[in-house]
Amino acid sequence: MDIEVQDTYKEKAMKQLHIDAEKIAKLIKVQMDNLTMPQCPLYEEVLDTQMYGLSREIDFAVKLGLVEQEKGREILALLEKELNVLHELYTKK
Amino acid sequence: MDIEVQDTYKEKAMKQLHIDAEKIAKLIKVQMDNLTMPQCPLYEEVLDTQMYGLSREIDFAVKLGLVEQEKGREILALLEKELNVLHELYTKK
Repeated sequence: MDIEVQDTYKEKAMKQLHIDAEKIAKLIKVQMDNLTMPQCPLYEEVLDTQMYGLSREIDFAVKLGLVEQEKGREILALLEKELNVLHELYTKK
Repeated sequence: MDIEVQDTYKEKAMKQLHIDAEKIAKLIKVQMDNLTMPQCPLYEEVLDTQMYGLSREIDFAVKLGLVEQEKGREILALLEKELNVLHELYTKK
């Protein structure tokens, strides 16, 4: 396999996953800024749905061999950390 | 870009999307065989979640340039047709 092309798709995949993870963080931040309570079931549902969508993208990328499983887990773990920080900031308001 | 390698990832992507679409059809068939009513909210929720997951995979593949948008739409449309047939068969039982 041509290593250069392999890297192009791999880079694209990682970039897109990071964009999508960041989109979730932004969405949650907007919800918090607009005072939608984290205890609200709708908030939890939106978050669950978005996290599920992202994890499906990651699984897909891993199955295609574009992203290592460990890297995929890292993206989700980082996002969860970010959401926890946001959540903490929000509840301290 | 090396056309051969491009095709490998593209083929893998299409193959994986078809596998995942077929998985949804099978899941729904199992639910119907076990007499879980299509009117049941849980059935609808499972179906919605699975369809959402697949559409996220397709969007991801399209964004990476692995799958053409039209092909992605076709996969979803074919699955919907298949589910409609299953649904019809079930309600005629």
